Amino acid sequence: MNAIEFLEQTFNSCERQLGHHGKRNIRVLKEAFEQIEESRLSDRYGTGAVIEDFQAKMAALLGKEAAVFFPSGTMAQQIALRIWCDEKSLKKVAYHPLSHLEIHEQDGLKELHGIQTVLLADRDRVIELEDVKGMTENVACILLELPQREIGGQLPSFETLVGISDYCREKGIGLHLDGARLLEVLPYYGKTAAEVCALFDSVYLSFYKGIGGIAGAILAGDSEFLSKSKIWKRRYGGDLISLYPYILSADYYYELRAPKMGQYYEDAKELAASFNACHGVSTLPVVPVSNMFHVHIDLPKEKAASILAEVQRATGIGFTSYLKEIDESTCAFEMSVGDQYADLPKEDLRRAFRLLDDGMKA
Amino acid sequence: MNAIEFLEQTFNSCERQLGHHGKRNIRVLKEAFEQIEESRLSDRYGTGAVIEDFQAKMAALLGKEAAVFFPSGTMAQQIALRIWCDEKSLKKVAYHPLSHLEIHEQDGLKELHGIQTVLLADRDRVIELEDVKGMTENVACILLELPQREIGGQLPSFETLVGISDYCREKGIGLHLDGARLLEVLPYYGKTAAEVCALFDSVYLSFYKGIGGIAGAILAGDSEFLSKSKIWKRRYGGDLISLYPYILSADYYYELRAPKMGQYYEDAKELAASFNACHGVSTLPVVPVSNMFHVHIDLPKEKAASILAEVQRATGIGFTSYLKEIDESTCAFEMSVGDQYADLPKEDLRRAFRLLDDGMKA
Repeated sequence: MNAIEFLEQTFNSCERQLGHHGKRNIRVLKEAFEQIEESRLSDRYGTGAVIEDFQAKMAALLGKEAAVFFPSGTMAQQIALRIWCDEKSLKKVAYHPLSHLEIHEQDGLKELHGIQTVLLADRDRVIELEDVKGMTENVACILLELPQREIGGQLPSFETLVGISDYCREKGIGLHLDGARLLEVLPYYGKTAAEVCALFDSVYLSFYKGIGGIAGAILAGDSEFLSKSKIWKRRYGGDLISLYPYILSADYYYELRAPKMGQYYEDAKELAASFNACHGVSTLPVVPVSNMFHVHIDLPKEKAASILAEVQRATGIGFTSYLKEIDESTCAFEMSVGDQYADLPKEDLRRAFRLLDDGMKA
Repeated sequence: MNAIEFLEQTFNSCERQLGHHGKRNIRVLKEAFEQIEESRLSDRYGTGAVIEDFQAKMAALLGKEAAVFFPSGTMAQQIALRIWCDEKSLKKVAYHPLSHLEIHEQDGLKELHGIQTVLLADRDRVIELEDVKGMTENVACILLELPQREIGGQLPSFETLVGISDYCREKGIGLHLDGARLLEVLPYYGKTAAEVCALFDSVYLSFYKGIGGIAGAILAGDSEFLSKSKIWKRRYGGDLISLYPYILSADYYYELRAPKMGQYYEDAKELAASFNACHGVSTLPVVPVSNMFHVHIDLPKEKAASILAEVQRATGIGFTSYLKEIDESTCAFEMSVGDQYADLPKEDLRRAFRLLDDGMKA
């Protein structure tokens, strides 16, 4: 077994992890459905109380007229951008170079819709008002991702959001929020979901990030926009006869974890500090602004894997299952704080970080 | 309450129905997951034992190299046709005028792929070899739906299928099977799934028709085709982090009901005969060739609704929740036989059909 495999194997053997809510297993579904009446009827192609009630609840949370539940954010966001493009009769949108749409969707937006993209800002920082004002091309819509996941979950200031929103409204540019992790950033902004969403024309929220559901997404906005989205949802094959396995679990875990986002944020700051106290280890951002951050290690990937695997083996606390090579002498992994961190005894945590620090110094 | 509403209300009040497996409620999910270990891990973006094992099982059933699980048949089939179009460098396909893609998908195939369609055969009959041979346009692929749902689930002969398959191979035309209800037609053909699928280049199978699962579909074919389909699945937003709620329930109900398709077929023939014995009632086809058929009533929709509602009220047996107007003096509804028919006491059935017959004569 090489170091990378040893890292994954030790992670999978750990009963406890630093991040997340626990293993993604069938228990996630069983727990969500435990208290749900067997006689409760399925949704049916987007209709029925199960889906309509949850959509109304999410629309209210996000302060929008309407909301539609989708199987995935990939589907919801491509559709949102397509609708704004049709609205403006312009097949061009702008987003961050590391947007999910640009790097994780096999170019679905371009292949399915022929929509061109303008990449805003540098890869290693968030989009600022100047980037938007400096655009030389007309676009139908700008997508902002809060937090910017691929750079450790960084955020622009709330004032920047207001500035971008004002500018887009003035110029007639649609503004869409990739809010996959929207609830996770509210404690930092000190705002409600509706206050953030008021700056955007449309919003997407995911149910398996901080909320820890099984899958699924909400797209919210005005009623006309959502009516159009339902037609595209049907075209995509996303208008399933039954989405309730995702909807009811989304609702269950939303109720369970939305109130804990503040705790995850505080825990993330504490955890990041523990990493930053280790030799050759730093987090991005240094002080997290949500429940997530990236951990950078000043060692080649194989070397770092050996050290982390040994910490995992010795403590039974899972740090990470993988490492991403940044360059020949640096690697990184992502950390998202969920329910598990708070349950770890402080003494066990201290020992794990002492071992990591020792390993890094050796 | 008008007659149409009365029909729906009485249907929903019935504890028992002529068709289907029972109410689509949360019990469907709970039953499927009852015996599944909580520690079993989720699939993860198309990988993991839960999804890979089921795909391999379905590939074997269908006699194909590989299979991929999709959230929906709409998604799976559009993707299949797109791949064959790319393969032949020709964005044109042929199918029946009442194909699901033509009438139930908001033109997804055309809107998302710009694929043109050629409609084969008349609306009221199945596609025959002559229709295929008589095509004046080149197409990349032909889609055949077995059974042809919108005309009561009619089927071409197996010899016709062989003829169309031979012709398509000779001419280099792809042949795709819309086998949403493939298992349901095997008893009539007296063939295995693999024997039918051998005639086609790609096949789609649904898990919430005769199988009665929650949702989901399998697309099967050769490995190269399926590799391409996974890229499109990602583009569509169908590559969910977790599809297991659909996969494990599909597997559970497949095991439960695949062996019963012969019984559903026999029951459908018996049930159709009961309808045909009633005054002014006939089935399409007269003798079913699967578990499904359409019931045609020689009365205006409102009148027929009153009679059927009264039968439902008096017997507690649900016939239908809706009626579709054919013309001013005729209406129809669809019947799909599942688990429930065999559980209805024959005496109750006789009484219900006597009441229907009496109502029709009055």
